[in-house]
Amino acid sequence: MNNKNQVIYSGNYTFGNREMLMEKIQMRMSEKRFLHVLRVEEMAVTLAKKYDVSVEKASIAALAHDYAKERPDKEMADIILAQDFDKELLPYGNPIWHGIVGAYLVEKELGIHDLEILQAIRLHTTGAKNMTPLDKVIYVADYVETGRDFPGVETARSLALTDLDQAVGYEAKHTLLHLIESNAKVFPKSLETYNQWAANN
Amino acid sequence: MNNKNQVIYSGNYTFGNREMLMEKIQMRMSEKRFLHVLRVEEMAVTLAKKYDVSVEKASIAALAHDYAKERPDKEMADIILAQDFDKELLPYGNPIWHGIVGAYLVEKELGIHDLEILQAIRLHTTGAKNMTPLDKVIYVADYVETGRDFPGVETARSLALTDLDQAVGYEAKHTLLHLIESNAKVFPKSLETYNQWAANN
Repeated sequence: MNNKNQVIYSGNYTFGNREMLMEKIQMRMSEKRFLHVLRVEEMAVTLAKKYDVSVEKASIAALAHDYAKERPDKEMADIILAQDFDKELLPYGNPIWHGIVGAYLVEKELGIHDLEILQAIRLHTTGAKNMTPLDKVIYVADYVETGRDFPGVETARSLALTDLDQAVGYEAKHTLLHLIESNAKVFPKSLETYNQWAANN
Repeated sequence: MNNKNQVIYSGNYTFGNREMLMEKIQMRMSEKRFLHVLRVEEMAVTLAKKYDVSVEKASIAALAHDYAKERPDKEMADIILAQDFDKELLPYGNPIWHGIVGAYLVEKELGIHDLEILQAIRLHTTGAKNMTPLDKVIYVADYVETGRDFPGVETARSLALTDLDQAVGYEAKHTLLHLIESNAKVFPKSLETYNQWAANN
């Protein structure tokens, strides 16, 4: 991966350095997904620099955002029930679970306690009505990292580099359209994100 | 309007006969809208006969469904506040208000107390997760009445005459797509309707 964007960790948010974090994350996922994670980190660091967000937090949240993505459904559902997370999550499966369960596992297993980092992981798939700049950086970086290829990705990428809020709105709108055109169930929070960041109010 | 579908009222749900109800409704709206209302009634009666729904209730709910549509925003907002309706309604304006406020005014001013009729009026724009056959008849009739002309209306009309649940799903999905493509704010209940009747569960 591109070395020029590599971030030196302060140790304030993670037990070890970036390489130690990467190793723990790599062990939990396929190589294909790990390469996606590295591309999200690279884009997140670029966006963090541009929008005056902590580069270290952006790097950590990006590296950890899909930490739970390859856990078995049974393990994730058990966590949702045991931790008393919103029962409305249950019908939605991995695509919606992995952010929320991911934030929980990142804290528990990787020892990352920073609330901003955990929230950015929690919200990275759905977005939210209220998002911090870090939340937006991770949400958008996941959508426009250089490996993504879908109709509209160049518009999204160009918005990401010029207007972060508009990039959030574009992603919220087009994610929703894609889900509905595919007859997929839509988690209500994704509509809240669209209403806040994309719809004319 | 087509006389063959005209319904004789029992007097169980309305103070007077159909003509007396029509007159009160006609006085509250433009001629253009009143003609739409008569076409919705005609379609609702056709669907009610096909799906074994009370033809009299379908006629009354259809005639009254847009009763509040031309009330001033101020009057509707005052009713939402005074009647302690969901405050989340307030940003959505007439398109979302007129069903809920309409059901209230239809009871208060037209003396129609039947809960099934009032609910069909209340839900006619958004649909809902749980809908009675009468709710579905009014929701769909409003979308496919013979004056409607939009891309897909013939598919919607043909579904209405063959599978009422599929027609509800088609309408929920395509209404949502149209709103999102137009960057319009979407009331959460419209997503619930889509998730229940259109999405693959």
